[in-house]
Amino acid sequence: MNEIEIEMNGRKGQLALFNGPGKAFELKDFNVRALQPGELLVKNVYTTICGSDLHTFCGVRKEPCPTVLGHEIVGEIVELHPTHTGFDLRGKQLKAGDRITWTVFSSNPQSINSLRGIPQKGDDLFKYGHVLVEEPEVFHGGLGAYCIIKANTGIIKLPENIPLSIAATLNCSVSTVAGALRMAGDMKDKHVLITGMGHLGITCAAMCREAGAEWIGAADIAERRLDEALGFGADELFNMNGDNSKLLAALQERTNGKGIDVVFDMSGSPEAMEFGINSLGIGGCAVLIGAVFNTKPLLIDPERVIRNLLTIKGLHNYNFEDFKYAFDFIKRNWEKYPFSTVVEKEFSLEQVEEAFEYALAKKPLRVGIKF
Amino acid sequence: MNEIEIEMNGRKGQLALFNGPGKAFELKDFNVRALQPGELLVKNVYTTICGSDLHTFCGVRKEPCPTVLGHEIVGEIVELHPTHTGFDLRGKQLKAGDRITWTVFSSNPQSINSLRGIPQKGDDLFKYGHVLVEEPEVFHGGLGAYCIIKANTGIIKLPENIPLSIAATLNCSVSTVAGALRMAGDMKDKHVLITGMGHLGITCAAMCREAGAEWIGAADIAERRLDEALGFGADELFNMNGDNSKLLAALQERTNGKGIDVVFDMSGSPEAMEFGINSLGIGGCAVLIGAVFNTKPLLIDPERVIRNLLTIKGLHNYNFEDFKYAFDFIKRNWEKYPFSTVVEKEFSLEQVEEAFEYALAKKPLRVGIKF
Repeated sequence: MNEIEIEMNGRKGQLALFNGPGKAFELKDFNVRALQPGELLVKNVYTTICGSDLHTFCGVRKEPCPTVLGHEIVGEIVELHPTHTGFDLRGKQLKAGDRITWTVFSSNPQSINSLRGIPQKGDDLFKYGHVLVEEPEVFHGGLGAYCIIKANTGIIKLPENIPLSIAATLNCSVSTVAGALRMAGDMKDKHVLITGMGHLGITCAAMCREAGAEWIGAADIAERRLDEALGFGADELFNMNGDNSKLLAALQERTNGKGIDVVFDMSGSPEAMEFGINSLGIGGCAVLIGAVFNTKPLLIDPERVIRNLLTIKGLHNYNFEDFKYAFDFIKRNWEKYPFSTVVEKEFSLEQVEEAFEYALAKKPLRVGIKF
Repeated sequence: MNEIEIEMNGRKGQLALFNGPGKAFELKDFNVRALQPGELLVKNVYTTICGSDLHTFCGVRKEPCPTVLGHEIVGEIVELHPTHTGFDLRGKQLKAGDRITWTVFSSNPQSINSLRGIPQKGDDLFKYGHVLVEEPEVFHGGLGAYCIIKANTGIIKLPENIPLSIAATLNCSVSTVAGALRMAGDMKDKHVLITGMGHLGITCAAMCREAGAEWIGAADIAERRLDEALGFGADELFNMNGDNSKLLAALQERTNGKGIDVVFDMSGSPEAMEFGINSLGIGGCAVLIGAVFNTKPLLIDPERVIRNLLTIKGLHNYNFEDFKYAFDFIKRNWEKYPFSTVVEKEFSLEQVEEAFEYALAKKPLRVGIKF
């Protein structure tokens, strides 16, 4: 954009620029540009650091730099462009001062993928916390004082009683899990296995429990993660650090030889994904979510997939219905499960470097940035 | 069963016993046992030899021997046990003299898999043309004068005008394809690729066309099979004997870079399955059907499955709804597509050896046994 054309908003705010793996965050003040049609300006109030932020920080995932990380965000509306409908996805009126969260993406709602229920792969895709900081396009992530919410972003107004640290995870992990359950179908009376008990895994356990699952097995290689899973609705824990053929036999026993109905992989580990697929009984379904990075290929026996009528599905991000389902789930269940323990430690934006180092060293489910 | 307990029907009939690969068929007369509750006695009038019959004949698929092969059968009702409801799956009254075909399986309708819509994997599973011939359980395949239809078998009464050679394929290939379309979902406006243009493939092309597919690509390694596919609704033919990366590029071009929506593998070839999965665009679905034998494992990139929201499903056999869908499809379309050319040559039961040798040597879509 030509600088002469850019109107500024008159506001200024701090931003933690990420200049690439191994480089220190750079705290810098920027001008906030004026809103364009359909947009909202939001003052960020809380951001949680997601696993994929850590991947970018470490260089496992590549993003254009400088960028502003953080996409699990709660904000407070500063102003709405006059052309915005003024409603959230649930039909609630939006006004300045309202606390909201929003989908990690915006895209053209008339594009083919959007019309097919995959707006997260729609045309003109924009993802918060993932793109280049290039003036005047600066405030589009969670690690800055403001965020400009693009047109065609799904917004949800948050009730005051949901803690910020819980609400912040809604638009990434919780919504992706909601999408995973949609893909897996009816959970009632199902035997479910979840591999990888990070935030996705524990949320998945609780959501499957609420959706009527009969039995939920939680698998991980870290004992601490397994311990946490118990509070989130898992019936039985499986440490995958040992002999997996024994685990497979145990799962067969637990299901009276029928095998697992639905397995969710949140780990991204090829061994866990293959183990999960091998644990499935007739008509079983595997939903893969974790491997959003390069791994070795899975070895899949097609005869077994065919004779056992197996389904294997991949999911990346989520759609607007999933986002609403996630909100409804958290609204009803944030006190029932220990979601308030998810953020282990909170930091200010000035402490962002420390926050990332803490997250990498201690591997908590989340750390929070409080504004 | 104890011989003293077995009532005979008073009828005798000829059967072509299969004693194992490399051994000649043995034509032998057997007594027909009396019907048990829920059963029907049928006089076989036409049987087509399926690819899986050929697999057993060659020793690629193992069945208990001696057995009676043939499961794609049309029969004429001789008698119904008084406890049979007297209705077919569509509510049509059944009586002696009616021409019928029936599901390749029967199973306990109260078992878990049946209740979940997978009766082909239900408890007490029985499959016609697949089990041991052991008196008095003799007439349970297509290569005998009679067949006893077990309780809980799906039956469809056939209109007189559908040729026997077409009706015979209904209960195996056509119904499995109907199941494949059910698993793939709405076909309207979809770009479809079918790999393997045997009877499953050509039927799939015609069924996708009728279901509203936008574009249908047919792939095989045999030029003759590809030529046949054109008559069954394929828009474009792809010979996979060459450079598959060029084919992949051609498919991308045909779909304006969007990739294939649905791929059906009917070939069982790992290369074809991997090719098909690699051709899928965002949200694409692969339905695997062909590999009902041991093959090398597929190499699947989980990151691609996840980021492109791919689905991979396996299907073996079909359920009662698929069988009805297949019947309806054939009833409406048997003259629209060249299904009457599918059986290339007909034989008598006495010529069964010759029929199998012909099928193996000439690789027609089907050969028929006419009683």
